[in-house]
Amino acid sequence: MIALFTDFGVGGPYTGQVKAVLAREAPGVTVIDLMADAPIQNPRAAAYLLAALVGDFAPGTVFLGVVDPGVGGERLALVVEADGRWYVGPDNGLFEPVIRRASAARVFEIAWRPPSLSASFHGRDLFAPVAARLALGAPPPAVPLAGGAGRRRGWPDDLAEIVYVDHYGNAMTGLRAATLGPGAALAVAGRRLPRATTFSDVGAGEPFWYENANGLAEIAVNLGRADRTLGLGLGSPVTVQF
Amino acid sequence: MIALFTDFGVGGPYTGQVKAVLAREAPGVTVIDLMADAPIQNPRAAAYLLAALVGDFAPGTVFLGVVDPGVGGERLALVVEADGRWYVGPDNGLFEPVIRRASAARVFEIAWRPPSLSASFHGRDLFAPVAARLALGAPPPAVPLAGGAGRRRGWPDDLAEIVYVDHYGNAMTGLRAATLGPGAALAVAGRRLPRATTFSDVGAGEPFWYENANGLAEIAVNLGRADRTLGLGLGSPVTVQF
Amino acid sequence: MIALFTDFGVGGPYTGQVKAVLAREAPGVTVIDLMADAPIQNPRAAAYLLAALVGDFAPGTVFLGVVDPGVGGERLALVVEADGRWYVGPDNGLFEPVIRRASAARVFEIAWRPPSLSASFHGRDLFAPVAARLALGAPPPAVPLAGGAGRRRGWPDDLAEIVYVDHYGNAMTGLRAATLGPGAALAVAGRRLPRATTFSDVGAGEPFWYENANGLAEIAVNLGRADRTLGLGLGSPVTVQF
Repeated sequence: MIALFTDFGVGGPYTGQVKAVLAREAPGVTVIDLMADAPIQNPRAAAYLLAALVGDFAPGTVFLGVVDPGVGGERLALVVEADGRWYVGPDNGLFEPVIRRASAARVFEIAWRPPSLSASFHGRDLFAPVAARLALGAPPPAVPLAGGAGRRRGWPDDLAEIVYVDHYGNAMTGLRAATLGPGAALAVAGRRLPRATTFSDVGAGEPFWYENANGLAEIAVNLGRADRTLGLGLGSPVTVQF
Repeated sequence: MIALFTDFGVGGPYTGQVKAVLAREAPGVTVIDLMADAPIQNPRAAAYLLAALVGDFAPGTVFLGVVDPGVGGERLALVVEADGRWYVGPDNGLFEPVIRRASAARVFEIAWRPPSLSASFHGRDLFAPVAARLALGAPPPAVPLAGGAGRRRGWPDDLAEIVYVDHYGNAMTGLRAATLGPGAALAVAGRRLPRATTFSDVGAGEPFWYENANGLAEIAVNLGRADRTLGLGLGSPVTVQF
Repeated sequence: MIALFTDFGVGGPYTGQVKAVLAREAPGVTVIDLMADAPIQNPRAAAYLLAALVGDFAPGTVFLGVVDPGVGGERLALVVEADGRWYVGPDNGLFEPVIRRASAARVFEIAWRPPSLSASFHGRDLFAPVAARLALGAPPPAVPLAGGAGRRRGWPDDLAEIVYVDHYGNAMTGLRAATLGPGAALAVAGRRLPRATTFSDVGAGEPFWYENANGLAEIAVNLGRADRTLGLGLGSPVTVQF
């Protein structure tokens, strides 16, 4: 299985063009649109979101991760193997939390280029063919990276900011709920929000935070929209109060 | 075949996460994204929309219907069999018009829970695995519900309000056109709209209603957008004038 | 393979309903969502966009192209064969640039109608079944069109306007970059934009144009959004300055 995690947007031709390559290079392999609206041009926020989503997928899954503001520049092209899952994409930190949380991980630089490589769409031209080959069990040439290469060691283990606002107006943080105590509060936009288990634990219109279905601390409002009530958006800072 | 009808939104990870479960639990089964932007947190409006869309699908199709504002609360989890098609989702009326219009229907409570069930994402954790098993012909344990359980008998047969505004600005009502006479007018936003067969039956910029391709009465404007011209949105009331 | 190119929008049921027909009529055939947000009700702009996207697809691919403001009126229903690829959709110019750029092309009128044909959704009722049959190698009856029928000979070879604004705010023109000289500038919104190869060739916040990954001249801003910076949208005129 290949799972797509990109900031291409839900419209436009880019996802379809990537899928056309995958269908040609790896016919019969299941392709899942995991997200097409990952934090746009923001691999750091996207990285903490991606790391929260991979746990459901079986070993052998190939994640094609394209949040790539540096396309056409000098950043490397990576393949990462972490806990039996594969990740293909740019060397900009997108896979850092995945690597760091894995019990075992290896980072490679892709030592292969397609016959024709556009300056602006490596997702289609480079990463998709590599993902196809990984899904077929025939990875292209790749060079192991040692030391700090391919890594962002200065990044935090969890990210204290909003990394996604969903269709309901709920605001996901880059903080794993399990790293916070049961009595921890989150402060956003000058308000202290208590922890709850479910929406109905608080009154109508009341904001709170809870552990979402992917293990992240998420800010919500019972019978309302947290984004509007609290003025939250991608990148809004969050403070943990113990 | 499994058809997804949800209010997850066209962005975000939820549809992809559900599809990952379906691919794992029912490999090889075709999955169709019927709608991801069903009326948000509004199972009543969504119910009349869903009922208009199921007729095209063959017997044996499994509809995974998730518009579920009560997730994590005490609502039941249902499987419905109606005219040979299956429906899986919450007990909040989402399947009421489908049941009522079927020549034969049975309603069951799902008597199975997954090893791990999140508080907020039963679509992924509970309904998707059940849909997968139904698609494979191996339904999980379920208990028939008799009498009013699992039903919304107080709901109308058709819903006189806007249940969806499409990409072109056309506004679908929850009224089946066949229940209205050929001379019936619809009144919305203080205006009386005549019935027409096609857009070109009326002048440019003129609003009208017609039977859409799914059998619903739909409000449109020739060479324009009904939503903007008439100020219509989800939930706007409609009056029938005979 | 069948590739969908429509203006149905990324939400709503229309794409799902088309896919349900394709799954029934051509089970096992791969279906790719190429675009669902082609220029809305604008077959002319859509045509130049489509023509830029087809080159990646293998011979035998069937493009289901539905940008069809004249549905229900008197326009013909076409099948086009161009350089070994098939195109199915309305006779409104949507395939004109594809035909014109092909080394060999044939245009047919579809001489078949389904048992039930709605007035407003030929994408589902007519074009999808035809596309399914083409994908299976069993095309329905069709009549060759000679001379100008099915053509828009008055249209330009390239379209000097914005035909799509993507998720990043980049604005694609209908001009093939290869038709412009290396020193050509584009003028939009009263500004003269130089050509560059990649984003990092210009300063932060600077607008420029470049050849995008599909061969079109595209207007962008380094580390910014061209649509907002320059006030560009679908249909904005572009002038070429040599």
